[in-house]
Amino acid sequence: MTVSSEYSLEHLISKRAAGRKKIHFATALTEGAPHGYIPHKEPLYMSGGMPNVGFFPVDSISVGVADYPFQKQFELTHSNGSLEALSKDLKKLDVQAESTKKVEIAKIGTDKNLIDIRQGLQYSHWNGMEQLLEFTKDFITRTHPPAHSDWSTILTTGAGDGILKCMDSVLDKDDVVLMEEFTFTPSLMMIRETGATGVPIKLKVSSDSEGIDLEYLTDLLENWETLKPGLKKPKALYTIPTGQNPTGLTQSLEFRKKIYALAEKYDFIIIEDDPYGYLTLPPFKQPEGTQSLDEFLTVDEYIKDHLTPSYLEIDTSARVLRIETFSKLFAPGLRVGFIVGHKRLIDVIAAYSVIVTKFPSGVAQTVLQNVLFQKFGGVEGWLQWILKLRSAYIHRRNLLLHELTQASAYQKGLIDVIDPQAGMFVSVVLKFPEGTDVSEKITLLNWKFSAYGVSVVPGLNMAVDKEFSASRGNFYRLTFVPLNTDAEVIEGAKRFAAAVDDFFAKGLEF
Amino acid sequence: MTVSSEYSLEHLISKRAAGRKKIHFATALTEGAPHGYIPHKEPLYMSGGMPNVGFFPVDSISVGVADYPFQKQFELTHSNGSLEALSKDLKKLDVQAESTKKVEIAKIGTDKNLIDIRQGLQYSHWNGMEQLLEFTKDFITRTHPPAHSDWSTILTTGAGDGILKCMDSVLDKDDVVLMEEFTFTPSLMMIRETGATGVPIKLKVSSDSEGIDLEYLTDLLENWETLKPGLKKPKALYTIPTGQNPTGLTQSLEFRKKIYALAEKYDFIIIEDDPYGYLTLPPFKQPEGTQSLDEFLTVDEYIKDHLTPSYLEIDTSARVLRIETFSKLFAPGLRVGFIVGHKRLIDVIAAYSVIVTKFPSGVAQTVLQNVLFQKFGGVEGWLQWILKLRSAYIHRRNLLLHELTQASAYQKGLIDVIDPQAGMFVSVVLKFPEGTDVSEKITLLNWKFSAYGVSVVPGLNMAVDKEFSASRGNFYRLTFVPLNTDAEVIEGAKRFAAAVDDFFAKGLEF
Repeated sequence: MTVSSEYSLEHLISKRAAGRKKIHFATALTEGAPHGYIPHKEPLYMSGGMPNVGFFPVDSISVGVADYPFQKQFELTHSNGSLEALSKDLKKLDVQAESTKKVEIAKIGTDKNLIDIRQGLQYSHWNGMEQLLEFTKDFITRTHPPAHSDWSTILTTGAGDGILKCMDSVLDKDDVVLMEEFTFTPSLMMIRETGATGVPIKLKVSSDSEGIDLEYLTDLLENWETLKPGLKKPKALYTIPTGQNPTGLTQSLEFRKKIYALAEKYDFIIIEDDPYGYLTLPPFKQPEGTQSLDEFLTVDEYIKDHLTPSYLEIDTSARVLRIETFSKLFAPGLRVGFIVGHKRLIDVIAAYSVIVTKFPSGVAQTVLQNVLFQKFGGVEGWLQWILKLRSAYIHRRNLLLHELTQASAYQKGLIDVIDPQAGMFVSVVLKFPEGTDVSEKITLLNWKFSAYGVSVVPGLNMAVDKEFSASRGNFYRLTFVPLNTDAEVIEGAKRFAAAVDDFFAKGLEF
Repeated sequence: MTVSSEYSLEHLISKRAAGRKKIHFATALTEGAPHGYIPHKEPLYMSGGMPNVGFFPVDSISVGVADYPFQKQFELTHSNGSLEALSKDLKKLDVQAESTKKVEIAKIGTDKNLIDIRQGLQYSHWNGMEQLLEFTKDFITRTHPPAHSDWSTILTTGAGDGILKCMDSVLDKDDVVLMEEFTFTPSLMMIRETGATGVPIKLKVSSDSEGIDLEYLTDLLENWETLKPGLKKPKALYTIPTGQNPTGLTQSLEFRKKIYALAEKYDFIIIEDDPYGYLTLPPFKQPEGTQSLDEFLTVDEYIKDHLTPSYLEIDTSARVLRIETFSKLFAPGLRVGFIVGHKRLIDVIAAYSVIVTKFPSGVAQTVLQNVLFQKFGGVEGWLQWILKLRSAYIHRRNLLLHELTQASAYQKGLIDVIDPQAGMFVSVVLKFPEGTDVSEKITLLNWKFSAYGVSVVPGLNMAVDKEFSASRGNFYRLTFVPLNTDAEVIEGAKRFAAAVDDFFAKGLEF
């Protein structure tokens, strides 16, 4: 592993991560050739225990792909309105004949963009297969071009793995990472592995908010020694800046610039976790029957006007690690994602990947890469799929918000609804009377939702520190993605609102 | 995670591993239901961010499977003699019509043994999908039934991941694990992660050996404080007991019983790494043209008379962790393997899996499970495939040993060849004159092999401690598995032997 002494943020890399060495029994002869040595033109490899492709029981893989989400060709027990009733607009959806919808993966192929069985089912490099790594670079160049040129990518086995590796690369024992007070709490497990501490920063959970309480954060950093005695200065900020989990809030470019200025001033890394930021959502409007395809954007319009810029795009000092995943855009079962960051950080992560990952499943990489290229033709076609997915998301978000805002609980002012600009989460804020014991009432209300038959996540369950966040934990995270049909989205919203109504009517008792 | 206070070896579990807690924002309501609460009959899940199957671009997956290794249907640039010329015996190979060789994976299926797209591409449990876990249990029950009944299995992302997780579950900082002095050295990276130390134990690298130098080990354990001052007593032994990597040696059941007695006496865990032990090899005999199918065994014969018992089968005190992988039997690109051990150890490993793996790729699990059941019909059929693979291995091993033992280097007594009883590695011992600087000559000889066009692994490259093992490092690991054809196996052996001949003829100089 080349250690570039030039990376100016070397001091932010964890000692543990920087100290890892790859151990292998490499046979490559590099220097000290004896006099008269001439390399053989056609060497035979009897060194690596890599079974020849002839030993694999798989000869070919064929993947049937959809033209758009919820396509009719598969049978659900209920109908789905999102994109199902669009038969008259099928041309816009590029619907293909059955015969052309198969992605065929050969045992031994010739197209260099594709991954064949021989490559895909073999051992491969921990950074990821070359073709897919190339795709991730092209994709980032198109969507979120970094402000510096010394960046690279490495595949992960999904966003969780990305979080683990980013945390590991920065945090040593007793180090500190800042986190949104309500967040993807499994990341706390990753932080605990490093021996570091996650310190929550306040969020503003309201419709006009961009998430992080900037005044709180600024003050905290300015007065760190006083406010957090005994804790080291933070080495990183872990943030989900777009469609934040669980609040659904999104940081604008201007907001990010302010956070980035703090990162430069107080010298910390920004770990940007963005699992569903590509699924941008325009402001809520009442749904008009099924989703209209007129709202479909071109890829250029989407990137220019709809996609929120990543921290990468303002990352002039190369302090951003961006975590992406194919879980929400393709499927979670793939277990494929990637990290973008300065080459030195990516190298450090690679040395950990050899140990904890070896390499993401080759079967998954193969299916993904071949669908990306055979079906979608690469980056532009993949963005077209994302636009279709986005359209289905918008439709469902609209249905959910329509139903919630029409409900009596909303009309009476018992709840507020945060309209997300991206992603899959809608937060509903409970407007408890001043002085309410939020934690107690949330616990009771959970039973009410269960009795009404709707499973939702209390914001407080996703707090880094429940005590610290108790007074701001008066909200629930709802998502429309797991449900089968439009009807279920509508019914779920009705149940939720009715449960709230009932709870308030009974004086915040069950 | 249930902590069973009953596991008698709790003191051997690492503090780090035992201390892990799973963190999730579960919404399950378990206790404290308010008066009058009645659970809803048909709840709607708006909690988890698990995209509905309708959002996945994949509608179906079809896998074309082979009837036997190196089947003609795919094109290699060279012909292969292993099982290719068997057209007259095709019935024995159960060759199927093209149309019946497809394993079809549906978007939504009904067969409970199979994994459909809806399940396979979704998030799933870190232990592994239920169907595949069931298979691993059935497989172990058939092949290596443990001596105690409190065992379970957990999926890994391959043997490397299995090693990491076993090491992690046992070793804390400054702990000690014993290892064969020549071994799969990447395991040293896994050990380093825990802060523990790997201590090499001597091997006997010769044809009549079973690997570990039992006298050395016994003496070492008896006199640990004197021989290894300052080092803690070992908490584990990491061993590759069948077709050992790199030596190819195999421990008999009697030998294992002796090692196990030491494990009980000195109270350590046995981590049994067995990636290719199922590929048993009868004693070498001169090959007679192509492999004869008459050598095919029944599954019962194979298990009764050929498969070396696992440490599991004598594990009366539940101190064995067995690492398996589908990498060599199916394909490395799957990234699926599993660990077998006492339930408490498996639970401890599960808590780590949530962090470092989340779950093995669902696409890989899906392809694997459906091939195992649709094509092979479960455990018995899978063992049939292993027997076919074994047959191809035997054939190649015979070709290699035939060629090596016919070569002038062997006839002159310059090399000895270790006939492996299992696996993919053949060790060739160089018979240097007494007093030779093995390390220096091996380095020089590496260049000779390179010049002759054959890539092999010097045993010394796989030493835990090159200095400790220098005098026993006079051997090379050869494998026949990566090569395309029989002709290449023969040619590789020729080149190897010729290089040795040349090297000795020049007085151990290049």
